[in-house]
Amino acid sequence: MARALRLAERGRGRVNPNPVVGALVVRAGRVVGEGWHKALGEPHAEAMALDRAGARARGATLYVTLEPCAHQGRTPPCVDAVIRAGIRRCVVAVRDPHRIVDGRGLRRLRAAGIRVEVGLMEGEVRRQLAGYLLTHTHGRPRVTLKLAVSLDGRIAPAGGFARRGDGRWLTGPPARRAAHRLRALADAVVIGAGTARADDPRLTARGVSARRQPLRVVCDTRLTLPPRLRLLRPGTVVACARPAPARRARALEARGVRVWRLPASTAGVSPRALLRRLAREGCHDVLLEGGAALATSWLEAGVVDRILLFVAPTVVGAGGLAWPGRLPRAWRGEMTGVVPVGKDVGVMVEVGG
Amino acid sequence: MARALRLAERGRGRVNPNPVVGALVVRAGRVVGEGWHKALGEPHAEAMALDRAGARARGATLYVTLEPCAHQGRTPPCVDAVIRAGIRRCVVAVRDPHRIVDGRGLRRLRAAGIRVEVGLMEGEVRRQLAGYLLTHTHGRPRVTLKLAVSLDGRIAPAGGFARRGDGRWLTGPPARRAAHRLRALADAVVIGAGTARADDPRLTARGVSARRQPLRVVCDTRLTLPPRLRLLRPGTVVACARPAPARRARALEARGVRVWRLPASTAGVSPRALLRRLAREGCHDVLLEGGAALATSWLEAGVVDRILLFVAPTVVGAGGLAWPGRLPRAWRGEMTGVVPVGKDVGVMVEVGG
Repeated sequence: MARALRLAERGRGRVNPNPVVGALVVRAGRVVGEGWHKALGEPHAEAMALDRAGARARGATLYVTLEPCAHQGRTPPCVDAVIRAGIRRCVVAVRDPHRIVDGRGLRRLRAAGIRVEVGLMEGEVRRQLAGYLLTHTHGRPRVTLKLAVSLDGRIAPAGGFARRGDGRWLTGPPARRAAHRLRALADAVVIGAGTARADDPRLTARGVSARRQPLRVVCDTRLTLPPRLRLLRPGTVVACARPAPARRARALEARGVRVWRLPASTAGVSPRALLRRLAREGCHDVLLEGGAALATSWLEAGVVDRILLFVAPTVVGAGGLAWPGRLPRAWRGEMTGVVPVGKDVGVMVEVGG
Repeated sequence: MARALRLAERGRGRVNPNPVVGALVVRAGRVVGEGWHKALGEPHAEAMALDRAGARARGATLYVTLEPCAHQGRTPPCVDAVIRAGIRRCVVAVRDPHRIVDGRGLRRLRAAGIRVEVGLMEGEVRRQLAGYLLTHTHGRPRVTLKLAVSLDGRIAPAGGFARRGDGRWLTGPPARRAAHRLRALADAVVIGAGTARADDPRLTARGVSARRQPLRVVCDTRLTLPPRLRLLRPGTVVACARPAPARRARALEARGVRVWRLPASTAGVSPRALLRRLAREGCHDVLLEGGAALATSWLEAGVVDRILLFVAPTVVGAGGLAWPGRLPRAWRGEMTGVVPVGKDVGVMVEVGG
């Protein structure tokens, strides 16, 4: 199963809205076929592994990270292929909560006389599929809030610290590289209008191996961003609230920018509405990169699943920005990883981690 | 030398204003005498080790963590004992910057024909003696600012979070135990009047093995603290600024509280003046426990050598207190330790660490 988990990862960023899946066919203690879901529309992991195993699949065991599908989608149902291949035993890490699967695959396999076991390395695979699973259990992608902070918890003010001679960035190059790796693993990266205006980030994963770039999303409730920003290029999504001027939306659309008109919450674009829309776009993992106002409204909305802080060994005081604003209640998570990142330290905290 | 370093630690908290020191007499690869400075007025580490070695010290090597003294103090000069014992080689980790020693010990040993080597495990011993060394190079004790903070860098407001139903403390029992261990290692613990008024802490090291309790110091610029606080008991020091009412000072002194009238800085009692006074009291290591106002004025004064944060996996938002206030320039250190402490994480940052 550990091997299947690693195989699955090869599909990261290429299979959405499908999940990444890995599979192995094992006969008499030997691997006779490996598979992973390579890209949307390509065969599923089980189909690929069975195809490679050929006749050797008869009487063998299939290890697969996620419950095989039982429906005709872009590809034929996997359970049929499993049954046809003569698999005797099927070991599944995680049951698929997708409403079109949701145990049907397991039942079909059992009905065909195949011995089915569920739960091997379930925790590890749940972590790998966290965004996919959340999308199908809660109707929204997983959200990771990423911030670079000082020891006193402040983030850099709009435009950085340049004017105070303290260095524009809080954190060092290794932390910034790690941030680019995070983008490469995310399906979408979201920032607020303040950050867009001050920093005009490209929101691409650079200097790291990235199979594809994440969807770039900027929340601009009233469409007030100057159109000259390099962020406002073809493919970028600008999420605005319904009362935003239609004229500005058309101007952006003429430049190839996608404008999403969404319901508003008290603090601007509704985080939940935006997340539902991102789920419809096939996004499982959303990276929220600030600033303080966006962090506040998303924490308030209760949609932040993980917080990743890069903490710099510096105290900036009131020259930095405190985040978030007032919350109706404290956000609580569990430390799931603390690692040195160059001169800084990365702290990952997860809800129910 | 590693053994000598461990021996030295046995004197922690008992030898001030002397440094902790450990020594070994080694002959033909065997330890023939061990010593450490046990308590103020007791023999120095070298004297104890030589005494235990007796005649076996002749022709042997002496390992000692700090340069032997060459002057008559509470005990006779160690160099005389070393020479008299017939030591052939002396290995010293760190030269003593105390103006009364400062190389004289090494010169006396060399003049007596003893081979002297300096610098073995110098880094480790410098860390062990950091407070002592700073006291004799910069005229003030080493200051460690300790705070319990949320992920968003806030500290608990006066009186804790009790009223908001979020639990009084940010951090868990292991972090609070670690804080008591820190107190046991410190020579003095300093807090501000706001913290004293809100929390009335006992400022003792509890639930940990403590050889002695640190000096308790509260900064109360104008002596406005209510005398009924349990903190204001015999032995506690209240540091106030010169214009504080003499009547209140007398009332405190009548209760056995020590009142130090010190120069004022813009934000109250001058941190540097207080530290000079603490150095005169023999303090090498001062633990600053907040709150936000005191942290700000000490950071502003440039006297914070280390910051130890206990970070809780919680975001409290504007209901917590941001710290510090505006600083003339950023405080910069190096991460020297990041360790999980129960559900929290401890982050140690040191200037020039």
